[in-house]
Amino acid sequence: MIDYNDFLSQAASGMQESAIRRMGAILAQNRDLISFAPGYPAPETFPWSEFSDIAREMLSGSHPNALQYGATRGFRPLLETIAAIMDHRGAPTEMNRLLITTGSQQGLDLVARVLLDPGDVALVELPAYTGAITAFRNVRAQMEGVPQERDGIDLAALDDTHQRLVKSHRRVRFVYVVPNFQNPTGMLMSLRKRQQLLEWAASRNVLIVEDDPYRELYFEDSASEADVRPIKADDREGRVIYLSSFSKTLAPGFRVAWIDAPAPVAVKIEMAKQAADLCTGVFDQRVVHECIRRGILERQLPLLRRHYAEKRDVMVDAFRKESDTAVSWADPRGGFFLWATLPHELDADHLLDRAVKHGVVYVAGSAFFVNDRGGSQIRLSFSAPAHEQIREGVRRLAEAIREELRAREQADRPARASTGR
Amino acid sequence: MIDYNDFLSQAASGMQESAIRRMGAILAQNRDLISFAPGYPAPETFPWSEFSDIAREMLSGSHPNALQYGATRGFRPLLETIAAIMDHRGAPTEMNRLLITTGSQQGLDLVARVLLDPGDVALVELPAYTGAITAFRNVRAQMEGVPQERDGIDLAALDDTHQRLVKSHRRVRFVYVVPNFQNPTGMLMSLRKRQQLLEWAASRNVLIVEDDPYRELYFEDSASEADVRPIKADDREGRVIYLSSFSKTLAPGFRVAWIDAPAPVAVKIEMAKQAADLCTGVFDQRVVHECIRRGILERQLPLLRRHYAEKRDVMVDAFRKESDTAVSWADPRGGFFLWATLPHELDADHLLDRAVKHGVVYVAGSAFFVNDRGGSQIRLSFSAPAHEQIREGVRRLAEAIREELRAREQADRPARASTGR
Repeated sequence: MIDYNDFLSQAASGMQESAIRRMGAILAQNRDLISFAPGYPAPETFPWSEFSDIAREMLSGSHPNALQYGATRGFRPLLETIAAIMDHRGAPTEMNRLLITTGSQQGLDLVARVLLDPGDVALVELPAYTGAITAFRNVRAQMEGVPQERDGIDLAALDDTHQRLVKSHRRVRFVYVVPNFQNPTGMLMSLRKRQQLLEWAASRNVLIVEDDPYRELYFEDSASEADVRPIKADDREGRVIYLSSFSKTLAPGFRVAWIDAPAPVAVKIEMAKQAADLCTGVFDQRVVHECIRRGILERQLPLLRRHYAEKRDVMVDAFRKESDTAVSWADPRGGFFLWATLPHELDADHLLDRAVKHGVVYVAGSAFFVNDRGGSQIRLSFSAPAHEQIREGVRRLAEAIREELRAREQADRPARASTGR
Repeated sequence: MIDYNDFLSQAASGMQESAIRRMGAILAQNRDLISFAPGYPAPETFPWSEFSDIAREMLSGSHPNALQYGATRGFRPLLETIAAIMDHRGAPTEMNRLLITTGSQQGLDLVARVLLDPGDVALVELPAYTGAITAFRNVRAQMEGVPQERDGIDLAALDDTHQRLVKSHRRVRFVYVVPNFQNPTGMLMSLRKRQQLLEWAASRNVLIVEDDPYRELYFEDSASEADVRPIKADDREGRVIYLSSFSKTLAPGFRVAWIDAPAPVAVKIEMAKQAADLCTGVFDQRVVHECIRRGILERQLPLLRRHYAEKRDVMVDAFRKESDTAVSWADPRGGFFLWATLPHELDADHLLDRAVKHGVVYVAGSAFFVNDRGGSQIRLSFSAPAHEQIREGVRRLAEAIREELRAREQADRPARASTGR
């Protein structure tokens, strides 16, 4: 018998399954579940017939390179359209700074590999996107969490944390933030805080990794394009590594995202990508490029804003109708997620079993905290389920919460009785 | 000014650009070049209209999950068809051992991350596939090269190398081999040697990483299906990690490959993949699955064998016509590559500039050697260019060689004259 533990790398020994992906596995096994777990976009919003037209043309045989290996940096015409997108976002770029990645997840992985040695520190928000946490953990970096205020990361806490780390001779490489409709909290970082964060990073000489997949999905009743201005837009000295994606605006089945990094970092990311997958799928890149070129992406954006804002409304209204459960939240102003706090400090991990029995799943908040907190918080994605599913899912969740509260009460009662004895 | 070197990881500092990918960049800039450099499949063999039919169905809107995120392990129906392929190859597998990867390059990268710590040793053939070398280097492993004989890796040298490393307290994790039509030599490992390699690995308790992208492309005049039996087929104890791909049999533009690894290793590879790109493109996986289900892959294989065998013939004949250049090679029995030795110990790296001037490129052998050898060897891919291009490219290369030989002769002459002074 081979003992494979003898062969695993230290990185592998420390690897853990993502809670969100594990949810996916539960889901796949139980078709009747209503899922608020994975942050999936809504397939009914996809421009199917446009995709189909483009695919037919790409596969007509008159584009011999459409299914070939491609440049590691990406399909050049797509890179050029992305440069125009960056212009539009107020953050003009240059071709030697841009790379296509196989989804933003690959971008995070490549950034981790290029910037983090084992033991180096990545500062992350509390809570933070699990995919970033696992990417940083897989290169054996250490994550230090910094609390968030209502308008984004707590800068005083950030500086305290940084100073403490520097004093104990830790190397802090970057701070990772999702300023727009953060995953998992849905929070929008204020413009003032963005500016302050950039100044802070310069003063302490750390880089900023700005992950921006949701910026187009601002809800027009409570946010505007001015609110989602990237930190990168004010980065004069090349301190920000910016990631964005087409997964939320076109479709995640095409694995196409991008990084804008300072040229010397971009060169290393390119080398890392060469060994990671040679190139992002060329067909996917060409479809995305055509969607931009033909104006399909541009047409989609207002539709998507309305679509997801409506779903947010449906979820928020559904929770209001279950107000006796005393679940609390801040209304999301964009993105895919409602970040809710369970009543009476119910444990979200513990409640999950009961929720699944009632036919609904969420991601327990603990998955997003690098400091083992988040016990009574949950992330609910309203993006994928239909309105009726959202209503029914919230109803089921409320029922699970009530049942859990009753069970706890009953468990408490004999305990008190025995104390009285 | 930010000094980005202060921020780069040790892994990044050691990263180098792949010679093959660099060739790609040269090519992209010069459309008139004939390229024998990258191992690209021939787009004229792709089943375009079948791809188009499948894409149209997938994108009709009646498959809402066709553009969604998918399971990290891969699209289940595709995994099941791959299990059938493994059966056919004489190496039955189980679902808990299989994973889809974003090309075999990702498979190599994930294997490296899961099995290699910095300083660990991966044994590789001399020469070996550069993509594997860079994947292993990027986790800061050390490569030790083992020479090949005419029928594959030199087992005596392998054992000597291993013993030497063990004596100096190095951890040897695995030996990496491409038994079928190796990249870059085109060599076919004998069945006897495969068996012996497996026995050797068991006796020394190292794993085998068997990379098998070319196995279907045996040329029927000189090889048969029996010759390409995977080492994995005789692996009773779970010592072999097997990789294969659809890039060479369907199209590389769909980034779809697979790994068969012992279940405890597969679990870790899955976790590493979660953080690397969440999942392989779902549309791509579905297209590949449909190609198998509809019998398209099966119909392609004999056509591809003939197509590439013909191209090999064209290249070999072209070199025979330039016999005065005294280039030498062993006729490939399958795959994409002719591995040639330049006459009179011409330096292949040095010759490359002259070859480009003449309008032809190859990959210098040094790119494939982890011990800085291969000075006068070159890898020529006959897979992508058309017959006429192959003939013209060989003619140009022969011209460059003659010119180089004349230049060397002239450089030598005055040197001798001056010695006589």
